[in-house]
Amino acid sequence: MPPRNLLDVDDLAPDELVAVLDRAMAFREELPPRDLCAGVPVLNLFFEASTRTATSFTLAEQRVGADVISFAPGASSLGKGETIADTALTLRGIGVRVIVVRHPESGFARRLADSFDGHVINAGDGTHAHPTQALLDLMTLRQEFRRFDGLRVAIVGDILHSRVARSNIVGMRALGIDVTLVGPATLLPRDFLAPGVRIERDLDAVLPRADAVMMLRIQRERIETGLLPVLDDYTQRYQLNRARLRSLRSDAIILHPGPYNRGLELTDDVLDDPRSRYVAQVHNGVFVRMAVLDMLVNGAPVPA
Amino acid sequence: MPPRNLLDVDDLAPDELVAVLDRAMAFREELPPRDLCAGVPVLNLFFEASTRTATSFTLAEQRVGADVISFAPGASSLGKGETIADTALTLRGIGVRVIVVRHPESGFARRLADSFDGHVINAGDGTHAHPTQALLDLMTLRQEFRRFDGLRVAIVGDILHSRVARSNIVGMRALGIDVTLVGPATLLPRDFLAPGVRIERDLDAVLPRADAVMMLRIQRERIETGLLPVLDDYTQRYQLNRARLRSLRSDAIILHPGPYNRGLELTDDVLDDPRSRYVAQVHNGVFVRMAVLDMLVNGAPVPA
Amino acid sequence: MPPRNLLDVDDLAPDELVAVLDRAMAFREELPPRDLCAGVPVLNLFFEASTRTATSFTLAEQRVGADVISFAPGASSLGKGETIADTALTLRGIGVRVIVVRHPESGFARRLADSFDGHVINAGDGTHAHPTQALLDLMTLRQEFRRFDGLRVAIVGDILHSRVARSNIVGMRALGIDVTLVGPATLLPRDFLAPGVRIERDLDAVLPRADAVMMLRIQRERIETGLLPVLDDYTQRYQLNRARLRSLRSDAIILHPGPYNRGLELTDDVLDDPRSRYVAQVHNGVFVRMAVLDMLVNGAPVPA
Repeated sequence: MPPRNLLDVDDLAPDELVAVLDRAMAFREELPPRDLCAGVPVLNLFFEASTRTATSFTLAEQRVGADVISFAPGASSLGKGETIADTALTLRGIGVRVIVVRHPESGFARRLADSFDGHVINAGDGTHAHPTQALLDLMTLRQEFRRFDGLRVAIVGDILHSRVARSNIVGMRALGIDVTLVGPATLLPRDFLAPGVRIERDLDAVLPRADAVMMLRIQRERIETGLLPVLDDYTQRYQLNRARLRSLRSDAIILHPGPYNRGLELTDDVLDDPRSRYVAQVHNGVFVRMAVLDMLVNGAPVPA
Repeated sequence: MPPRNLLDVDDLAPDELVAVLDRAMAFREELPPRDLCAGVPVLNLFFEASTRTATSFTLAEQRVGADVISFAPGASSLGKGETIADTALTLRGIGVRVIVVRHPESGFARRLADSFDGHVINAGDGTHAHPTQALLDLMTLRQEFRRFDGLRVAIVGDILHSRVARSNIVGMRALGIDVTLVGPATLLPRDFLAPGVRIERDLDAVLPRADAVMMLRIQRERIETGLLPVLDDYTQRYQLNRARLRSLRSDAIILHPGPYNRGLELTDDVLDDPRSRYVAQVHNGVFVRMAVLDMLVNGAPVPA
Repeated sequence: MPPRNLLDVDDLAPDELVAVLDRAMAFREELPPRDLCAGVPVLNLFFEASTRTATSFTLAEQRVGADVISFAPGASSLGKGETIADTALTLRGIGVRVIVVRHPESGFARRLADSFDGHVINAGDGTHAHPTQALLDLMTLRQEFRRFDGLRVAIVGDILHSRVARSNIVGMRALGIDVTLVGPATLLPRDFLAPGVRIERDLDAVLPRADAVMMLRIQRERIETGLLPVLDDYTQRYQLNRARLRSLRSDAIILHPGPYNRGLELTDDVLDDPRSRYVAQVHNGVFVRMAVLDMLVNGAPVPA
């Protein structure tokens, strides 16, 4: 039985996960006919502003032939006070079969899915999860290394507030990737350390051993709220810059979920570096989302 | 000659009304080919936020093959101060053939239609009219009872401010339905009592005789503005709850336009009751809107 | 080689310009098959509210079969502080091939195009340029007079702040049109007077000689900010009204980019006058935009 929703990466068993990535790779090689989800009403419900993720989902939906409906309601305006369950009932009654939802509240996608008799794709909920971002990162790793087991990935920065990091950790561990989290104590989680996930303080010790380093966006509000009292100290210890690029292996790659804060978590040198895979990541995102839509609507792809 | 616009239900003669409902029922049985309105530019102009109605219209438009364009302008921003007539002229010049409009001002849809050389569908204007909502309610009644003449429908709550109630009263009276309005004096109209429409204060006296009871949404701002000084009094007299459900006939049905205010005009018991037709209502809405688009663009359906 | 972008009219050589207008005329005669840009992702990025221009572009994009994605971000929200270059890289990575952009900042479209490895169409940037508006004006002139060379066009009003006027001047001069700017000194430019462009203060002296008069919108904020201290004085000297219509030749035409400020730059008489071409202008706009999309995506049309 295929999963009904994609709320986080662990809705997929490891073989399903690999199968979705393979399907996405096949779509990238050659676009499928535009009738994979022909006439299926897909509702994009983005309670948080987004251009990149919403564009990527929309394009994926169009390429599988879905009927795309998009709203960007304020976080408070949906249903004039009705319950999530009533909203879900209404949307399903109208005929919506897939809801792609982004919401500032962790757990919102799950609450919607609990009441929605269709498919929910979590496009980011608070600091909780962002599974399609993790899938596109995994696809980029697979494309590069053609294996997952034993890969060493360092995730650097504000892991505590990052739904991208959380979903990646879940997926990477399921696939046997060795994950190291690097960052200041105030930005590291205390609660989701799984087996195989290590914490390191010294980025310079980690870099030479990494197959891939994922730099997270540092949000300036972390500094203003005191979680990062001294910015200079942060950049000195955790910024990926020209000097640190020298200690990264020549066959390693650099990932970043975007958008960049140039001069903060990384310098311009990083983005000009041939090991940077940012464009591959966003490019892969559309195909991963097509594969997820195909899986949810049409059933799980046959594991390879 | 088919009507040019759907501003309120009385733009349709009774036989046209029935023909549109029949067409909608046929569409629900089997989706028509997606070329009924192929290439017809339909503009959704929602000056009031809406997710349910806008989603329903959008889906209907896609299913008849229209070119869908959607805007949610602030109520004041359209045309930077130009007149409605000039906006209408501009949109028609661009090529728009159908405008679906929602606006907080009663009469706005009519004013737009007066200047627009195409078709206007009123998706709700102030407290005036919401004809497609009435059509979907009528479709739900027809589906249930297979007749209109002599049906007894009670409409309960804030009838004064309800465009849903107004349009329903117009349509129900045209079809020979016996309408009873129930609510506190401050929320009852003084101006649109047609023959065959009665006012009752005692809900408990009305319920046992009703074939259908339509519960209207009570807006909390009515309480704040003093029109409903004591909420407890309202719920005690007009709320549909477990006790009152017992006095409703077993073959009667319950309608609600949504969104609910659970605990106000109704309790959870109502929504779990098998006589509730809320999901059927929203489901029917898409097909009614497809039938209206088909009628306006392609000419009136042949009356049955 | 066809141009890669349409940032202003001078991205087109005169023969390309004429070829695009011819193509647009052909499209108006008979809609082309809806596969001219089939499956090409086109992103509408409107940082300024717009209904008319956005509707026109959307309709044009649908008629060439593009995959249309539309956003109306606040001017500050795109990319959470990322650079324009990074946004451009991201959107191209996702797969967007054409960006239609409107932005309050002059030069924004150019800056986006500098980093975007696709096609950018400027739908209005600050007071700088609005090339598709100029193209539709030129198409309307061509339709009327079947020639450009030696035509005498008066542009009247707030030329200083008008991207419509600027782009028209560029295009008209390229095609040999004789341009006269008319308006108060505070609203006339000092910096873009090309050969063949004259300034006149006396509208009454200009009107009898004009083949076409283009009335610009007077924005009420010009009055509030002191650039137009006395409105009565403005209307007395520059308003097109019943008296001045008499001095306009019977075979001359009147253009206006919309929206009107009735009673300010023109009176109702103008809009009822058979020489007014406002509806033709907006009608032509869709076809001009189809032709521009076709040219950018598929290569330049063969000059006639």
